[in-house]
Amino acid sequence: MTAKMKSNLRFKDIRYRRVNDNFQEIGTNNEYISVQSDQHLSIYANTVIAEEVLDQKYESLEYDTPEVPAIKLDMALSCRKNNLRNTCLRYVLLFIIGLAVGSVASLIDFLTNIICSNKYLLLQYLFTKYNTYWGVLVTGSVWSAINCFFILTAALLTVIIAPVAGGSGIPQIKCYLNGLNIPFILRGKTMLIKAIGVVLAVCGGLFVGKEGPMIHVGAVIAAGISQGRLTWCGFSSRLFRCFRNDPIKRDFVNAGAAAGVAAAFGAPVGGLLFTLEEGASFISQRLTWDTLFTSVTSMFTLALFRSIIDGQPFSFTPGGLVSFGMFETVTSYNAYELMIFVLMGVFGGFVGAFFVGLNKVVSKYRQSHMKFRSAKVIDAVLISAFTAVSSFAILILMADCRSGFQKNTDSSHKILCVDGEYNRVSSLLFNTPSKALQVLFHDPPSSFNETTLIVFIPYVFFIACITYGVSVPSGLFIPSLLLGATWGRLIGDYLYAASPETFPNPSKFALIGAAAQLGGIVRMIASLTVILMEATGNVILGLPLLITLIPAKYIGDYFTEGIYDVHINLAGMALVPWEISAMCVQLRALDIMTSPAIVLDPVMSVGDLHRLIFDHPHHAFPVVEGDKDPDNFNYGQLIGVIPASYIALMIKKKVNYINMHSMIYLPQNETETPPHLTANDFDDAYPRFYRLKDVLLGVKDYEFERLLDFRPYMNPSPYSVFERMSMTRVFALFRRLGLRHLPVVDKDNHVRGIITRKDLCRFRIHPSGQVAELLFSRIY
Amino acid sequence: MTAKMKSNLRFKDIRYRRVNDNFQEIGTNNEYISVQSDQHLSIYANTVIAEEVLDQKYESLEYDTPEVPAIKLDMALSCRKNNLRNTCLRYVLLFIIGLAVGSVASLIDFLTNIICSNKYLLLQYLFTKYNTYWGVLVTGSVWSAINCFFILTAALLTVIIAPVAGGSGIPQIKCYLNGLNIPFILRGKTMLIKAIGVVLAVCGGLFVGKEGPMIHVGAVIAAGISQGRLTWCGFSSRLFRCFRNDPIKRDFVNAGAAAGVAAAFGAPVGGLLFTLEEGASFISQRLTWDTLFTSVTSMFTLALFRSIIDGQPFSFTPGGLVSFGMFETVTSYNAYELMIFVLMGVFGGFVGAFFVGLNKVVSKYRQSHMKFRSAKVIDAVLISAFTAVSSFAILILMADCRSGFQKNTDSSHKILCVDGEYNRVSSLLFNTPSKALQVLFHDPPSSFNETTLIVFIPYVFFIACITYGVSVPSGLFIPSLLLGATWGRLIGDYLYAASPETFPNPSKFALIGAAAQLGGIVRMIASLTVILMEATGNVILGLPLLITLIPAKYIGDYFTEGIYDVHINLAGMALVPWEISAMCVQLRALDIMTSPAIVLDPVMSVGDLHRLIFDHPHHAFPVVEGDKDPDNFNYGQLIGVIPASYIALMIKKKVNYINMHSMIYLPQNETETPPHLTANDFDDAYPRFYRLKDVLLGVKDYEFERLLDFRPYMNPSPYSVFERMSMTRVFALFRRLGLRHLPVVDKDNHVRGIITRKDLCRFRIHPSGQVAELLFSRIY
Repeated sequence: MTAKMKSNLRFKDIRYRRVNDNFQEIGTNNEYISVQSDQHLSIYANTVIAEEVLDQKYESLEYDTPEVPAIKLDMALSCRKNNLRNTCLRYVLLFIIGLAVGSVASLIDFLTNIICSNKYLLLQYLFTKYNTYWGVLVTGSVWSAINCFFILTAALLTVIIAPVAGGSGIPQIKCYLNGLNIPFILRGKTMLIKAIGVVLAVCGGLFVGKEGPMIHVGAVIAAGISQGRLTWCGFSSRLFRCFRNDPIKRDFVNAGAAAGVAAAFGAPVGGLLFTLEEGASFISQRLTWDTLFTSVTSMFTLALFRSIIDGQPFSFTPGGLVSFGMFETVTSYNAYELMIFVLMGVFGGFVGAFFVGLNKVVSKYRQSHMKFRSAKVIDAVLISAFTAVSSFAILILMADCRSGFQKNTDSSHKILCVDGEYNRVSSLLFNTPSKALQVLFHDPPSSFNETTLIVFIPYVFFIACITYGVSVPSGLFIPSLLLGATWGRLIGDYLYAASPETFPNPSKFALIGAAAQLGGIVRMIASLTVILMEATGNVILGLPLLITLIPAKYIGDYFTEGIYDVHINLAGMALVPWEISAMCVQLRALDIMTSPAIVLDPVMSVGDLHRLIFDHPHHAFPVVEGDKDPDNFNYGQLIGVIPASYIALMIKKKVNYINMHSMIYLPQNETETPPHLTANDFDDAYPRFYRLKDVLLGVKDYEFERLLDFRPYMNPSPYSVFERMSMTRVFALFRRLGLRHLPVVDKDNHVRGIITRKDLCRFRIHPSGQVAELLFSRIY
Repeated sequence: MTAKMKSNLRFKDIRYRRVNDNFQEIGTNNEYISVQSDQHLSIYANTVIAEEVLDQKYESLEYDTPEVPAIKLDMALSCRKNNLRNTCLRYVLLFIIGLAVGSVASLIDFLTNIICSNKYLLLQYLFTKYNTYWGVLVTGSVWSAINCFFILTAALLTVIIAPVAGGSGIPQIKCYLNGLNIPFILRGKTMLIKAIGVVLAVCGGLFVGKEGPMIHVGAVIAAGISQGRLTWCGFSSRLFRCFRNDPIKRDFVNAGAAAGVAAAFGAPVGGLLFTLEEGASFISQRLTWDTLFTSVTSMFTLALFRSIIDGQPFSFTPGGLVSFGMFETVTSYNAYELMIFVLMGVFGGFVGAFFVGLNKVVSKYRQSHMKFRSAKVIDAVLISAFTAVSSFAILILMADCRSGFQKNTDSSHKILCVDGEYNRVSSLLFNTPSKALQVLFHDPPSSFNETTLIVFIPYVFFIACITYGVSVPSGLFIPSLLLGATWGRLIGDYLYAASPETFPNPSKFALIGAAAQLGGIVRMIASLTVILMEATGNVILGLPLLITLIPAKYIGDYFTEGIYDVHINLAGMALVPWEISAMCVQLRALDIMTSPAIVLDPVMSVGDLHRLIFDHPHHAFPVVEGDKDPDNFNYGQLIGVIPASYIALMIKKKVNYINMHSMIYLPQNETETPPHLTANDFDDAYPRFYRLKDVLLGVKDYEFERLLDFRPYMNPSPYSVFERMSMTRVFALFRRLGLRHLPVVDKDNHVRGIITRKDLCRFRIHPSGQVAELLFSRIY
């Protein structure tokens, strides 16, 4: 325990004793809710440690509606005048977002196909040309060199220009939708690097997919288009003003992410369910429709481009970036099969939990040992080189040359085999992962050597596990599906060998295995079912997929969290969960609040403000009036809450600068009107508000005596809670309204403390409410 | 305007003047939010009228977590000890619910098939036997008689035993999930009548479906099973105690309703989306999973029973009560088709709006002229007779005898045709509606006479329109689909005639027409898309369905509300919408609250309580202490809120009955402990609480001087809002937390008034916030 923690602890000890002493005076209504201060000590040791894990660099978003009169009037007037215009504009924007996401997806698809097919053509040519024992090493070297070059470029771009573009982006988007502002996550350059990087990563032979990144790309596109503002060229249209606030931007991002899923898997409904299950912090009927509309547009655009590329313009067939091929042969299933599917789901859950656990170890190592940019680039290149060399080795050493089987995919290559024979391993390793997936799904029974599959399973497991988390844009869906499809295929082949009549179709098992594995890793149910159902084009598969995914999720959850949650925790992002343990009902607001609260008077001089808050860079402050008595944890009567960003704006715009002695505003000349903040000022400042600390640093000495009147710009009616409200209900209020700050008051409306996202999230750090459990067990 | 309304109005006038005078003293922060009292007058005339429309018989449910110490402690202890047990029990219950819903659906399906097929066999026999000009009238009479008998039985059962079982039940379930307690809606007898009634209604030849009622049946089953209590035999298990509260019961009902959809259409994901889009007031990840699990179980059970009935046990094929047949011939679509689909969506929207408008007129007539049971029964029988006679007449008069067409459904009959020929009209009218639907979907091109379809369209429109709302259990999905499929089929046939190469498949258009029509009437998008996609077994249809349903909904919404909302409004049920107009940001809590508030002191004599609240049968009361000054709208300092049902329980159990003079509880003998309410007492009382009014009537005179101490049983930390909070934010708090009562306080925490569901819903009565608009336009 560090010294800082100890001092924290000591402080909290004192606070608790105080609060409780105080409480004895107020008198509680019955014996159940009395709390003894010394019992809190050891518990707080625990929560303080937990708190240290939360990264301070992530701020919350404000999903509450602003209550500043100027903004309210502007909203109401705009709604009255321009309601229809705004609605139309919203749909136009959603349509454009869908178009853009679909177009970017098409472009990524097109580039990946072109580059990858040329790479493999070149390598095939080399294999044919240097067809000797040592000659293959030439090809191997070229292969590795090309891959390393691609990955080096991708890693350099990512690390230097947009580090947040690394990985799949799903954890970050999940946190954003939950109300956490991840810096740079929605910037244009992040999207650019993500799109370029994912093409390079896939063509660089890593075991990664382009589906997860598509979701991130979709979110960035939506955020960018909906704001109608180009920072780099100073363009900003007032027309979009009504969309420039956190809750509406979040809705657009939600729709964009869904459009990304729709384009990635050809699954518009799956996209909707993905955002509902994983992302959305609050769902409304309108959001459902908007999301679906955008998803459909996006998928439609992709289909249009694809029909043009395929030479049959305007003849649409469904499908996304990844195509599973059609499973039209699956028309029914029987009870045995269903039981096997459930068992496969269980197995997928176990393997998934192991995968997540191992990846957590790898990621922790990365986090602690690869802090410098160079290390991250080297990491990526090494993994690329290892992947290329090992793939090459397996391809050569296991050369499974076969002929005479029905070849219904064009993915096997002749590599090192005699004429008329094909190297079966090449269809798995000499291909992009998504093509290998198709081969596993659709090649006829017994077209694989069992040994090939048995070797391939641990290989994919290991490579995918160390690859996820590397500093290039990389999706996890495809490698997970590939791993599951391999063992599923193996099961299917064995069953086929055992009884070809009962189990004629190994494809089905490959698909179920893929679903089980993916479900065991990412722990989604509803959205995965629909995504896979739409991607396979077969509704009949819905039920088998569901009964596979349900055990996969619950078995997996028994051992570890889902991989996205693991990465969210590792990054120290404070995700507010959906629910908290019912045990928290015995905790009260005053048990979890931060106290002492830093409060402001309604009118303060800049100098006082500076002294009070310079060391406490909070993002909002309660405004109080009346007597304060900090010794008894009474910080004055709550009359409002003002965000730090508004204070910064007031100082910057010299608003309500009252001369301290005359108490009235002194205009510089007669014609000048008193400065005040308009809705336009707030709009201009959004979302990159001035930082109060920076603004205070820039204040001139002579301005220190000027007075600031916060009242016109504070929220005069904040949500607040009584100090004895149970944590369960505090949580419900906070979570469902997407709040950022929640003052805790006593029955005279005196501020006792303040609750923020981090105060609630402390209780999440230990899975299944362990902190709450501990606290609880001490009290009773 | 009635006298009562006028007095209301006068009172509110006074209130407003008072509140505003008061406000001038407190001082507003800027000029925008000053309100002038006289302007409110005419607006309140409007809202008062609106309020009269809301039916007082529907109470709200309490979706907030209880904050009574005894219950809290019990929850926390139970969670700590039995967390795993409760989770397992929940899944077991969900599984049983799914099984039960699937079984009931199978039974309904089985009975309908048996009865209907025997009825049609008998009629066919009669047609063959009395094959003369006048002889057909014998058959016609028998037909009408059978139908009238079925409908008479169904109507009598419904009207006498369970009036709420009439109609589809979707509006009621929607309201229940929204937080409105509709009496008798979740009782076992309601379900029984619903199930029997729907079989009789379908076999009685009405143009109704059994799908909507299945949703209601599912909801009742879920509510019944989850509560572990049989009122009629006094059984009640403590094991289920943790499920006996409104929010958890709601979650079960949600899952049950989804299971109903899953069984009805073979659409588990559609069921989930249905509850998300139409029902759920708050959605969590866990609720999503639970719902999906139950839906899958239900569909699975239905498939199991069906496989047994079909003689191929354990060979599952998907499908629900209604089967659309497989659309596997549809594999792609081109740009022309998509444009036609959009136009069909637009047309469906127009026709749907007209349907809803006409049905509203019919329903209003029913509501005002058919108040007696007998009228309702006669109404149902008349419609049945009219349907039978008109169907018979069309069948005979339009006898469209044809031969030589490829007959791929076994639904055409020979009726009055020569040997080898079949009466094509019989496939539409001499069949259950769902079978007619299959014929329209799947019979080959040009198997219908155009005239037949052209006559059939207005006929179905008219009959379905007058049938919906009749006092028998009856779904609207099938007749809507049938209407749409008919005009869709007509379009398909015309297009086929115009260009057989371009449009080879009229089926597709029949399906899109059906979707457009249903969407235009019920105004769902996401759920309908998925339901129809799952019901047709073809994912490729997802996109065409979506782009049809989106215009259908928005065109329809332009003219009328959806049919369920129309019926909700007609019944005066206060449904809290998803969102309110942004204009409401200028209204404040004090503009919408009910004032004066009836408040209680912490300790009161039974007599005082009686005098205070006997004429004000509210469902919860703020508890206050300190000085009151009602002239200035200060009703004392808020220290808690207590539900009327808890007070009733306290009086009933003689809890905290303090002797007024000694101020201590007087035990009857030495060994007696002071009575107090335990978690078990609350559990026993749920959900049929004592009514406070009834309890007060039963109090003996000598008990009037006893004192009640409310403090141990009140909620000591209710959610409350400042009087000047904007309505937008009050609404968000109320809607998202599912509250029932919301005290409005000033900055000293003095009660100013109280906001209930009805106060918020006044603003919904006029569509698109017209009331708010009016208010707004007056202020500015």
